Amino acid sequence: MTPPVPVLVDCDTGVDDAMALLYLLARDDIDVVGITTVFGNNTAAQCAHNTLRVLELVGRRDIPVAVGAERPLVGEVTYLATHVHGNDGLGDSGLPMEVSTAVSDLSAVELIDRLSFEHAGRLRILAVAPLTNIARALETIPDLTDRIVDIVIMGGAADVAGNQSPAAEANIIHDPEAAQLVISAAWPTTLVPLDVTMVEVLTERHRSMLIAADTPVSRFVAATTDFYFERYGMDSYGVRCSPCHDAVAAAVLTGEVVPSVFPVIDVQVDCTDGPGRGATICDTRGRYRGFPSMPEGNCRVALVTDGTFPDLLIAALGA
Amino acid sequence: MTPPVPVLVDCDTGVDDAMALLYLLARDDIDVVGITTVFGNNTAAQCAHNTLRVLELVGRRDIPVAVGAERPLVGEVTYLATHVHGNDGLGDSGLPMEVSTAVSDLSAVELIDRLSFEHAGRLRILAVAPLTNIARALETIPDLTDRIVDIVIMGGAADVAGNQSPAAEANIIHDPEAAQLVISAAWPTTLVPLDVTMVEVLTERHRSMLIAADTPVSRFVAATTDFYFERYGMDSYGVRCSPCHDAVAAAVLTGEVVPSVFPVIDVQVDCTDGPGRGATICDTRGRYRGFPSMPEGNCRVALVTDGTFPDLLIAALGA
Repeated sequence: MTPPVPVLVDCDTGVDDAMALLYLLARDDIDVVGITTVFGNNTAAQCAHNTLRVLELVGRRDIPVAVGAERPLVGEVTYLATHVHGNDGLGDSGLPMEVSTAVSDLSAVELIDRLSFEHAGRLRILAVAPLTNIARALETIPDLTDRIVDIVIMGGAADVAGNQSPAAEANIIHDPEAAQLVISAAWPTTLVPLDVTMVEVLTERHRSMLIAADTPVSRFVAATTDFYFERYGMDSYGVRCSPCHDAVAAAVLTGEVVPSVFPVIDVQVDCTDGPGRGATICDTRGRYRGFPSMPEGNCRVALVTDGTFPDLLIAALGA
Repeated sequence: MTPPVPVLVDCDTGVDDAMALLYLLARDDIDVVGITTVFGNNTAAQCAHNTLRVLELVGRRDIPVAVGAERPLVGEVTYLATHVHGNDGLGDSGLPMEVSTAVSDLSAVELIDRLSFEHAGRLRILAVAPLTNIARALETIPDLTDRIVDIVIMGGAADVAGNQSPAAEANIIHDPEAAQLVISAAWPTTLVPLDVTMVEVLTERHRSMLIAADTPVSRFVAATTDFYFERYGMDSYGVRCSPCHDAVAAAVLTGEVVPSVFPVIDVQVDCTDGPGRGATICDTRGRYRGFPSMPEGNCRVALVTDGTFPDLLIAALGA
């Protein structure tokens, strides 16, 4: 049997970040060796604390959690998504605020340095938040791209609208300069954009199954999604439901979700101050020819999935 | 019986512009009262000459044709689409180069002024080229928006890639500043973007029917599409075929094509110098809720059509 694959998760925990973490932690083939946090859904410090709360829930106090950037490479934070993720950033689900562990003494970049050295040539990164930590790590660790197998990013919008602006998705518009740096770096990059995450939707049926399963994890996810359904679902879909953005990216990383349209294409991030700031400009012009090989492509982009992942997700979470 | 609706066509004739003109000229319910030309597929002067050639073919020497802008509001012309439309701009179809009529003594803006005055409150505009003439007319004629019923534009890309760049469609990127001015002007605007024009595809079946019909018009269109199939079809679709961009917009104007998804939404043109320059940033975030009413919307955008227009088009062209 092959040993589990070491994965570092960079996140802004977050309702859907928590789902992604719990999904990965439930798998035998994945070893979450460290978690770094960044501003986005909440402050990096609060997101780290929330991560510890999630790890506590599943008894994984051994995984180091390091606090990263509180602001983007350029400019200031303009927005934290507390209206979607609740005041505590975890859907006000009632998960205890007290934890018995502390965050790492290392910074996020230092933890990335250490883990990428220890697991050089084997480590994969799942990045489901603004890409500031990863960009800082690229600037700080000259051979980082050589140490890492690949990076899977939840973010962007290829052939659909954004969410935080008409053109841009939240993770990317929080730090477009970082995203451009990470996507154009010399490592295999996979983008899991709104094109697919918005069609992988948790519904009341899934919530009922989570409630019925009645495990600590399923109860927690049912509670967080209750909040998320009300805020996210009503705003975006007009009914109680929710996407599970970050968990979809985790499942693309594990290979449990294999997008049916998944070309390697050129992606550029709009770093202007115009109306397109933060857009991931994906060259999907090959779509009418079935996406022929594009040698200059810098990113594999998930463009179509079948919407069945939420069933797999709740099974992994105990329902 | 209601009198035919006066329509001014602003174009850069062009293979698909010619189809749009012939389609409109074949209809009893439309009165093409004037045509203005602009740089794009070729120079404005060559496009005007090509327009006269098309009008000659159907014996409509009475329609005034005025030459407009040879350059965008900002910057210079970087590109003429002669590789797609042939050296003569009409698919090198063998249509006689000699015409018995001359272009109007009026400039494009002067003709727009005269016709919008004569047909005030009734005139509609079909704009299937860079929007420089229309923008110049808006700048020159203060009450133009009051005189015009509406404007239907072939251009842009909402939730698909562009064609001239990954983000931008050719008509818009030729003059983004003009497009922004026209789309945000105080008149009803309809955008017919690549989202729908790229799925309304003429095939060899249509060409065979045009050849079999054996009229002057059907022979001409069959000849121009032969060239267009080879250049456009092979490049974009990998098979001999072609979209009929401008004719789709003409059919949206007449109402023969009614897009099944056709919301009024906010559209902004990217006028930066970044990678998104010329993109039409369409706020399609309402798609997951069936596009609820957006009072701040400035443009009706055709997002879905059923691909059956080419059958109607060739019928209108005699096949």
